[in-house]
Amino acid sequence: MAPVAIGMVMALGALLMAAMLEKISFGALIAPSPMILVFVGSLGATFIAYKTKEWKKIPKVLGVAFKGKVPDADELITSFAHFADIARKEGMLALEGEIGRIEDPFLKTGLQLVIDGVDGEQVREVLEIEIESLTERHHSMSQFFLTMGGFAPTFGLMGTIVGLIGVLRELSDPTKLGKGMALGLLGTLWGVVAANLLFQPLGTKLNRLHEQEVAVRRLAVEGVLGIREGMATRLLVERLEARLSPDMRKGHAGRNSSGPAAAKEAA
Amino acid sequence: MAPVAIGMVMALGALLMAAMLEKISFGALIAPSPMILVFVGSLGATFIAYKTKEWKKIPKVLGVAFKGKVPDADELITSFAHFADIARKEGMLALEGEIGRIEDPFLKTGLQLVIDGVDGEQVREVLEIEIESLTERHHSMSQFFLTMGGFAPTFGLMGTIVGLIGVLRELSDPTKLGKGMALGLLGTLWGVVAANLLFQPLGTKLNRLHEQEVAVRRLAVEGVLGIREGMATRLLVERLEARLSPDMRKGHAGRNSSGPAAAKEAA
Amino acid sequence: MAPVAIGMVMALGALLMAAMLEKISFGALIAPSPMILVFVGSLGATFIAYKTKEWKKIPKVLGVAFKGKVPDADELITSFAHFADIARKEGMLALEGEIGRIEDPFLKTGLQLVIDGVDGEQVREVLEIEIESLTERHHSMSQFFLTMGGFAPTFGLMGTIVGLIGVLRELSDPTKLGKGMALGLLGTLWGVVAANLLFQPLGTKLNRLHEQEVAVRRLAVEGVLGIREGMATRLLVERLEARLSPDMRKGHAGRNSSGPAAAKEAA
Amino acid sequence: MAPVAIGMVMALGALLMAAMLEKISFGALIAPSPMILVFVGSLGATFIAYKTKEWKKIPKVLGVAFKGKVPDADELITSFAHFADIARKEGMLALEGEIGRIEDPFLKTGLQLVIDGVDGEQVREVLEIEIESLTERHHSMSQFFLTMGGFAPTFGLMGTIVGLIGVLRELSDPTKLGKGMALGLLGTLWGVVAANLLFQPLGTKLNRLHEQEVAVRRLAVEGVLGIREGMATRLLVERLEARLSPDMRKGHAGRNSSGPAAAKEAA
Amino acid sequence: MAPVAIGMVMALGALLMAAMLEKISFGALIAPSPMILVFVGSLGATFIAYKTKEWKKIPKVLGVAFKGKVPDADELITSFAHFADIARKEGMLALEGEIGRIEDPFLKTGLQLVIDGVDGEQVREVLEIEIESLTERHHSMSQFFLTMGGFAPTFGLMGTIVGLIGVLRELSDPTKLGKGMALGLLGTLWGVVAANLLFQPLGTKLNRLHEQEVAVRRLAVEGVLGIREGMATRLLVERLEARLSPDMRKGHAGRNSSGPAAAKEAA
Repeated sequence: MAPVAIGMVMALGALLMAAMLEKISFGALIAPSPMILVFVGSLGATFIAYKTKEWKKIPKVLGVAFKGKVPDADELITSFAHFADIARKEGMLALEGEIGRIEDPFLKTGLQLVIDGVDGEQVREVLEIEIESLTERHHSMSQFFLTMGGFAPTFGLMGTIVGLIGVLRELSDPTKLGKGMALGLLGTLWGVVAANLLFQPLGTKLNRLHEQEVAVRRLAVEGVLGIREGMATRLLVERLEARLSPDMRKGHAGRNSSGPAAAKEAA
Repeated sequence: MAPVAIGMVMALGALLMAAMLEKISFGALIAPSPMILVFVGSLGATFIAYKTKEWKKIPKVLGVAFKGKVPDADELITSFAHFADIARKEGMLALEGEIGRIEDPFLKTGLQLVIDGVDGEQVREVLEIEIESLTERHHSMSQFFLTMGGFAPTFGLMGTIVGLIGVLRELSDPTKLGKGMALGLLGTLWGVVAANLLFQPLGTKLNRLHEQEVAVRRLAVEGVLGIREGMATRLLVERLEARLSPDMRKGHAGRNSSGPAAAKEAA
Repeated sequence: MAPVAIGMVMALGALLMAAMLEKISFGALIAPSPMILVFVGSLGATFIAYKTKEWKKIPKVLGVAFKGKVPDADELITSFAHFADIARKEGMLALEGEIGRIEDPFLKTGLQLVIDGVDGEQVREVLEIEIESLTERHHSMSQFFLTMGGFAPTFGLMGTIVGLIGVLRELSDPTKLGKGMALGLLGTLWGVVAANLLFQPLGTKLNRLHEQEVAVRRLAVEGVLGIREGMATRLLVERLEARLSPDMRKGHAGRNSSGPAAAKEAA
Repeated sequence: MAPVAIGMVMALGALLMAAMLEKISFGALIAPSPMILVFVGSLGATFIAYKTKEWKKIPKVLGVAFKGKVPDADELITSFAHFADIARKEGMLALEGEIGRIEDPFLKTGLQLVIDGVDGEQVREVLEIEIESLTERHHSMSQFFLTMGGFAPTFGLMGTIVGLIGVLRELSDPTKLGKGMALGLLGTLWGVVAANLLFQPLGTKLNRLHEQEVAVRRLAVEGVLGIREGMATRLLVERLEARLSPDMRKGHAGRNSSGPAAAKEAA
Repeated sequence: MAPVAIGMVMALGALLMAAMLEKISFGALIAPSPMILVFVGSLGATFIAYKTKEWKKIPKVLGVAFKGKVPDADELITSFAHFADIARKEGMLALEGEIGRIEDPFLKTGLQLVIDGVDGEQVREVLEIEIESLTERHHSMSQFFLTMGGFAPTFGLMGTIVGLIGVLRELSDPTKLGKGMALGLLGTLWGVVAANLLFQPLGTKLNRLHEQEVAVRRLAVEGVLGIREGMATRLLVERLEARLSPDMRKGHAGRNSSGPAAAKEAA
């Protein structure tokens, strides 16, 4: 089970347990009016600032957040150790054979540029533009969920106010008053729940996934440039591993056996 | 229907549906006093920081937000492919004929500078000043709506407090109390609705439209400079497409047939 | 009537109209205790962070905000067209005669440095230090009002809490309770009104006036440096006008007749 | 009386006056439980992030905030006029005699480096490191009070909630209910008062004092470097005065009579 | 006792004392449902954005926050005085003997690079990458607690709303109403307590510890580079001490007797 799912089950479980302990059934927390207001309302208010073309990406992005997979820095370094060996033993052009086996288009573009003998500064520039344009696309998607998380409590509040307005006009009957207010409060509850159990954590998750992906992309940039300069395998591995946490560093010796297989998975 | 309109209809629809489900008619949500306070009050408080000359631009800006049109990056690149072909085959001066057909004054200025043989660094500087001054004008307009969105809930709150003050002075009659409080709460409701269904989304929309326009403007700067340097069409297209998302890249081959027609629409 | 005054009248009018519609007289909103707390309290809390020398500038700054006058970019460019003509026809030293007629000390300093033959980089540096020190002084004043706007609602809240404490100790009499709570709520109302109709808009207005003044100052820096370099009048005007919005650009031809008169008013 | 004291007396006076006007005696606002919670609680929560060594500096820092004294830019410039005269008439080494009379260690360090013939870039670097390390120490102290100002209202709220919990368990007796709620509200009141009349203004005051001190320090850096370059007295004074507000500029002529005496006080 | 513990005891003590003074026993503040909601819920919502590998580091990080130990700048400078003496008297290679006694891997890496004769700019770059990667790891951990501190009050609020919903459905019985609302308010109380006595202070503490560690790391970078350049011991000590507060500066003379022992503890 992915961390996203575990976290959501924990948070939702805590809410249901608390409701149970106070003898409120789950059914009592379900009501159509606050849920429509919070989910459809927040979605509508958020849609305003986005193009229809962006709306269509939302389901795919949700999948990405739930799976939470980022390119693997460790395997990428192993691949670079392999590429550096080839480049030094058989020459740059021998890397052409490896490129077919790489699935990550970013790494592929970078190595192709090196094989084509493009100038180092230009290789860096092309890859940086790719990272920049990736950042823009990712950011607009994580911002989508964070914006929804900002709207949800407000739409919940609207539900509560509308409920209160309905209740207050017939103050005479105290039992009705209580039930009406309980219903009204469901708006605030669902607004807060939607924002804090769903939209805000998803937006934050997407932001963190992006940061981790960019870190791996920058590693790939360093690796590609290292290979272009003909850096020794041992030195390249050391240089790249400086960006890993100390317990993940294996050194040159630990990266010998693998190669193309790893390169594929690093995609 | 533009995304802005779809989003607003969704959000407003969710609010009306929730009201209906709680058996509150739309008419019960309409009252002159909270609406005057929220709309006229927020407008007045926002006007304070703006010059009368800026006030007059608001209706036009609203239209821009609703239409949500930005210059098309795709067509712009196609135009540049066309311009690069001409420049390389017939020389820079042959671009003079194309300029008459361009409607976008930004692109026009840039190409004219290139034809006039102005130094690359100066071309970039002139176009950057244009982008900067565009940013300032756009920013002050999006800020107008975001400021209104900041004031609206506060003016709504004033309405609720004024309503409560009116009610509290005659606490004896509970039916009046209920009706008075319901009326008072409409202030908070309208403040929140105006901010979250209208002003804040419009301000955010304008900000995002601006970002998209600036991205296309920067593409035009790169394109103009590429043509000035006599860059090969294939290379120029690749360079510019690196800033598009991967699924929008067509390559050199995909940009052959079109030309002046596209250039016009990119305006 | 200045925009500040129009905006304030609109916002205050909306509040009074809403009160009227709910049949609350203006007199019922006036009470000494919340008003003392909000105005004197916020002023005191804000004074703490300021020197007595700065306190004395407040009335003058209020005048500036209400008048809302900034140096006129359009007239400044016309003056520069005039100066550039003189400098090219009669030499730099002929500008000496113009300086006596300029009232703006910033422009005067800049031109004097050019006449004295000071190096371009140093001219820019001296003028930039002037802008920087202007920014610091202006910023501390706009911050004064924004800080008051931050304190006002809190002092209003204190008034409401004090009022509630007074009321709650004699819960038995419901009519007294209502009147007491109504009085208490006036604290919150005045806090919110003072912040949103007065302090915050004034602070924002001052910030925007500053931004507009700095933009004109930067224009003057560019103009002074252009004259120092002996730039042609037509080119200088084009260069400076790039910083105006397109509808304000008149070109060289549109700036012929005027001169020293405009230079005075640009002060 | 220092501005800090005047401001606090004004703000506290407004609060007491408002209480008096609503016929609440000062004694009714005093209660041990909310005051312990707000002051001891906020202090404890803030202490967590600080080292015991930093705790001990708080009383001294409080004194600094109340006195509100910063090095005097005006006297510093007069001192520099004096130093520049000596350096040009009698040579750098003659400044050695002046150093004994300077009390400000920052200025002393700077001049000593100049007398020792240290390179200009290195003088700037050493003094910048001093300013940086000063900024870090000052910032952690102003942050201390701003953090307390952030915690205080929350601890006040805890007091109110605890009070409400106590009250709500015996709802039957309405007189007790009123008194209990009044007591509970004191928590919120004291939290808001402590934050807005004490902690936040003190933190802001310390930040502004720091900014003013750094501005004077940067003036001293410019002055020291000017003397090192053998700048003429008149030019040095003009250069330094550009950083004062226009009404504080006296020019070279206005800075003749004084010298070492002023230098001492500028410490 | 560490500052963290003292601060927490103070803040918690203030809360319990306030409860006691209002005659509420500690037991009355304990209830399973709000505590589960606040602690398990916040943890779950925070977990969503983190990888399971990061979850496992939390207990260790908690220990770090409570102990609050950072590398000692003072001892580090003494060690550098010792290293500089050796390097100048016996040559760089003699430092090889010292490296075995150093426990801090950061310092060890730096000195080893110097002994290996690596270029100064490259030494700085390698050490800066280490600091950067340290910052990333530390930041994600302090952010963990700050995120929990952001979620806790919201989950507390959910508890209160759920409690109110339960209560409001049986408004008829006022004694039940009171008890129910008291229970409901415990949610808000625990949310606020968890955020302000636990999560937020811990996150801030970790951030401050990190800042202090980075400051010491930067000192080590300066020291390592100074030794590489063969800087005189006295000069190196002065240079490094400029980054200490004035009362911690001992000068060259004060750093004579110690050496390897100190170097070990500085780890």
